[in-house]
Amino acid sequence: MKKAVILVSGGLDSATVLAIAQAAGYACYAVSFDYGQRHRAELEAARQVAKRAAVVEHRIVSIDLSQFGGSALTDESIDVPEANASQDDIPVTYVPARNTVFLSLALAWSEVLGACDIFVGVNAVDYSGYPDCRPEFVESYERMANLATRAGVEEQKLTVHAPLIDLTKAQIIQQGAALGVDYSLTVSCYQADDQGAACGRCESCFLRKEGFAGAGVPDPTRYANTAP
Amino acid sequence: MKKAVILVSGGLDSATVLAIAQAAGYACYAVSFDYGQRHRAELEAARQVAKRAAVVEHRIVSIDLSQFGGSALTDESIDVPEANASQDDIPVTYVPARNTVFLSLALAWSEVLGACDIFVGVNAVDYSGYPDCRPEFVESYERMANLATRAGVEEQKLTVHAPLIDLTKAQIIQQGAALGVDYSLTVSCYQADDQGAACGRCESCFLRKEGFAGAGVPDPTRYANTAP
Repeated sequence: MKKAVILVSGGLDSATVLAIAQAAGYACYAVSFDYGQRHRAELEAARQVAKRAAVVEHRIVSIDLSQFGGSALTDESIDVPEANASQDDIPVTYVPARNTVFLSLALAWSEVLGACDIFVGVNAVDYSGYPDCRPEFVESYERMANLATRAGVEEQKLTVHAPLIDLTKAQIIQQGAALGVDYSLTVSCYQADDQGAACGRCESCFLRKEGFAGAGVPDPTRYANTAP
Repeated sequence: MKKAVILVSGGLDSATVLAIAQAAGYACYAVSFDYGQRHRAELEAARQVAKRAAVVEHRIVSIDLSQFGGSALTDESIDVPEANASQDDIPVTYVPARNTVFLSLALAWSEVLGACDIFVGVNAVDYSGYPDCRPEFVESYERMANLATRAGVEEQKLTVHAPLIDLTKAQIIQQGAALGVDYSLTVSCYQADDQGAACGRCESCFLRKEGFAGAGVPDPTRYANTAP
């Protein structure tokens, strides 16, 4: 079986990607990041998702991005905005260079494992306008990764798979549901409480809710008592 | 003053790059990595180099690459080979994806700082054959970084400077000496002892020694008693 490294965040996108990689026959190595995010429920969700999928191995890598700040997701002093708040610009929930850092650590592990495939759940449709979720970023990252590592010297080809890149949130959920993903294990909210209950107010909650409605799939999301 | 982020390892190359960036008029932010390397003397050297250069700020970022293993520099069970040991392949001192990971963390910091310039001391001449020290890697990384971040959206251009890329070790030392770099603060050895004394046997010691001889600059390297 070919090995693949899958970035698993605890959210619904990456849970779907893990199911896609498994369905494609890869031996899956899941990696998650303890990066100074606001809530720990995300990592607990990642653990549950990886366990349910019975991955070969699940690593949680510590890399403190909150030391750089600059994002509502890593800096408690910046509030998470409500969904549909006016924004002309990149939103404050963007974490500078996050996907670049995460992919680079996945790349380090894949090189040691001898894996030529990395799967990441970035999505350019129902997303929040982050630069590192665009297809041109993923393509460029793959090109760089092939020059950065043994792959570039030994002419193995390393592929960065982003199977959700062109899908709507509803399409992602339909695909995952068909593959048997248990979305009740996942947490999407930017500011979930310690038990993983969602705020129901942020952009990520909004996209998730619309996604389940659009997919015609029952929404298993647990909301906090304070949710609207 | 324009801000720049400089990767400072404690070795002679990055000390030279820091001096070049300062001479070019940048406000310099130094970043070093506690990545599970064999010896701590490297980080102490980085501290001294950054302090002597009076950088605006020096950050030491923890990212444990030894958890992935696969390199003599992060795995005590793999011996550091002597210089000129036969090698057809990428040497065991190569740390998988190290420069990609380090540049990505520098990228995160630079984005938060609003710096559009990153300086890195990679070198493709007197080096050890690492894929992530080649000019095509640096060019590709820069292209990716411009798509990964605000730069790509807001049309600022982010530049990854590798001013040593085409220089021999002797040329690097000549340039640094002319800029007043105190190389006695730096440690290049792959397996220096806790006081920073060099083994005198590894590839990195060999390249450094030849570099000082070729440059006609007095070699301030401190060697361990066991050195040849």
